[in-house]
Amino acid sequence: MPMPDSPPWSGDAVAATLERLRARTPLVHSITNLVVTNSTANALLAIGASPAMVEAEEESAAFAAIADALVINLGTMTPQRARGMEAAAAAARQAATPWVLDPVAVGALGYRSRVAVGLLAHRPQAIRGNASEILALEALSDPDRPGAGREAGNEGGRGVDSAHAPEAALRSARALSLRTGAAVTVSGAVDLCTDGARLFRVGNGHPMMTRVTGLGCTATALIGACLAVEPDPLLASAHAMVLVGLAGELAAERARGPGSLQMELLDALYLLDGATVIARASLTADELRAV
Amino acid sequence: MPMPDSPPWSGDAVAATLERLRARTPLVHSITNLVVTNSTANALLAIGASPAMVEAEEESAAFAAIADALVINLGTMTPQRARGMEAAAAAARQAATPWVLDPVAVGALGYRSRVAVGLLAHRPQAIRGNASEILALEALSDPDRPGAGREAGNEGGRGVDSAHAPEAALRSARALSLRTGAAVTVSGAVDLCTDGARLFRVGNGHPMMTRVTGLGCTATALIGACLAVEPDPLLASAHAMVLVGLAGELAAERARGPGSLQMELLDALYLLDGATVIARASLTADELRAV
Amino acid sequence: MPMPDSPPWSGDAVAATLERLRARTPLVHSITNLVVTNSTANALLAIGASPAMVEAEEESAAFAAIADALVINLGTMTPQRARGMEAAAAAARQAATPWVLDPVAVGALGYRSRVAVGLLAHRPQAIRGNASEILALEALSDPDRPGAGREAGNEGGRGVDSAHAPEAALRSARALSLRTGAAVTVSGAVDLCTDGARLFRVGNGHPMMTRVTGLGCTATALIGACLAVEPDPLLASAHAMVLVGLAGELAAERARGPGSLQMELLDALYLLDGATVIARASLTADELRAV
Repeated sequence: MPMPDSPPWSGDAVAATLERLRARTPLVHSITNLVVTNSTANALLAIGASPAMVEAEEESAAFAAIADALVINLGTMTPQRARGMEAAAAAARQAATPWVLDPVAVGALGYRSRVAVGLLAHRPQAIRGNASEILALEALSDPDRPGAGREAGNEGGRGVDSAHAPEAALRSARALSLRTGAAVTVSGAVDLCTDGARLFRVGNGHPMMTRVTGLGCTATALIGACLAVEPDPLLASAHAMVLVGLAGELAAERARGPGSLQMELLDALYLLDGATVIARASLTADELRAV
Repeated sequence: MPMPDSPPWSGDAVAATLERLRARTPLVHSITNLVVTNSTANALLAIGASPAMVEAEEESAAFAAIADALVINLGTMTPQRARGMEAAAAAARQAATPWVLDPVAVGALGYRSRVAVGLLAHRPQAIRGNASEILALEALSDPDRPGAGREAGNEGGRGVDSAHAPEAALRSARALSLRTGAAVTVSGAVDLCTDGARLFRVGNGHPMMTRVTGLGCTATALIGACLAVEPDPLLASAHAMVLVGLAGELAAERARGPGSLQMELLDALYLLDGATVIARASLTADELRAV
Repeated sequence: MPMPDSPPWSGDAVAATLERLRARTPLVHSITNLVVTNSTANALLAIGASPAMVEAEEESAAFAAIADALVINLGTMTPQRARGMEAAAAAARQAATPWVLDPVAVGALGYRSRVAVGLLAHRPQAIRGNASEILALEALSDPDRPGAGREAGNEGGRGVDSAHAPEAALRSARALSLRTGAAVTVSGAVDLCTDGARLFRVGNGHPMMTRVTGLGCTATALIGACLAVEPDPLLASAHAMVLVGLAGELAAERARGPGSLQMELLDALYLLDGATVIARASLTADELRAV
């Protein structure tokens, strides 16, 4: 429970979100990629949510309507999975289920770039990507730019890794947020979260996390879980980034390499307590001047 | 080897099943969901079976015919995978390959409910689900009930988690067993296994197992492995539930959280020996009065 | 850096390949099976490569053209994934992206046997399988053999496990290499690598590795990563087999069972240093007489 005068970017506020998450065990519907299906489900279970992976178009709309949040991740995209995503996102919007989009490798690949732009029409509450992905998605979704909705030109990253630092994508993140209404998170050594008006920086995390596949996807899934218990999408995004980053720090203190880091991170999400969150959260509010 | 006068629900009998499993390394064909493909294969390898995941309809029938057992799990269902399951189950029945059905989230979702009812026509030797899934599958497969084969109404669980305790599903489990001829297992804090005439309760397990994704799916896969070496499907089911529950208990003694539990469980399945099984199996036979 | 007079099968040469791999972090495009998507990506990240899983035919050709290497693995084959593989392999050949084929369970299953033979037309630089798979692929691809391209008769293994020792497949490996131009690796207790003219044996590895699913697939992925930094496909193959085998040995020294082995193997790939490679590589060149 945050102190009455704690700002929403304090460790107290993050701890309060975590407490609500565990009290409510929100049902988080995920349509994600083949690489991280298991690790995403385990991270959601470890933190205290209830994950369910339902991807076929025959089922995904009905399930998105009853879920507490929806996570859509564009990795290992196929036309079948794209149809399931489209149905789920439309149903989520109609049922007021909050949802988050992870535009994996958008910009580098034309097909999924078009799928991503199409999904934006269903108004995600949050978007999380690395700098290259956010730069590309902003360019692709700009109706005033020639070629918008098709290819991102040379903005694209190199596969799933970013070719840019987060700060380089701040202007695009703000524009994307204003255009779509979503809170936008650019993850990196320091994560940026903005809704166009406000800007938070999250300093939690550890460099070895980049050597475990899909921890960005885990972060997106935790944003989904937080959207179910925190009505402000920007706070939900920033709090989730603190939680995953802090779990990564704690895991790195015990890990020898990426194999043990992956295991320890699940233990850390499970063991994370409010006192540790309050003591170690690195979340700062900044002014978002004209960037 | 069980003592000549050991009942089939003794630890000796479970240890004998484990010994046969390791001696024969049965080829266990699995068509399972995207969340647990890796953990299912690893659990089967750890206990001593030989897993093979073959799901396309172009291949699944031919493989089910040569396998020693078949596992069909309805999680992350798609029409493509449903066709592969249908072909495999039909071939298994024709080739007398024993098979087990895991009706993940049946009742909550209309599409997979229909697939599940269709698969029952191929006469699985065993079925394992949580209480909500067994309640729903029994209702869906009842030809005398209005709406059978379509929706399970409000029997359905909340996503993949059960909204009911196992004992609440005992009557349905018995009816489903009598209707289908399958041994039916309802998993939970205490697991129930019945073939309509007999009833076993399995007390092995640990609460933290619910925080690792897919351990129910692992239990189903081990039932498949036991079906290959134990001709009585009820004993195969009950013995498998002891083995996975006991491995979970042993793992929990060493684990800090769900990440280490998942890793330790594979080690425990691999290291499990007959003496430990005999000392710690919690398997009791009960009378199945009119319930 | 190998000593000027170190032969290419020395530990120095393997250490030099590892050093180049880490310096260049090659982008390794993988189209692999559902069982190992996560563990393959994690192994590539741990050793120092940059993995990307892109499988749909709408994307796979474009990505194969920009990747540094391509890995195609036939496990859990579907027609959709086969089309993605076909497009990627064709694009890789045209763009001179080196690629490696893992013919999982070829011979045991008619459908994927036809896919495998079709992919050979796109000239992989390397092929890795167990003895049964290499025996079957050689037979299937022999234009002078009745039934070539259809079924492998009784050459097929039992599911994904080999029914033969590597040495039994040496003649077939050589013939397959001469016919396709690929370096062919037959993995087993001692791995054989040949290009038809030369033969290397790799003694690194540990028996417990067979109890973790998909370590053969991991080996194939590492061959892909080495193809990106070592122009001689035979050396790339042999060096990769040393690296994965040595990581397995180091992991086994710390593991209690297959669960911890899987975790420790990722740590070992990450921590592997040149001195350890030089001290422990077991790579020998042999004469390839008429076999």
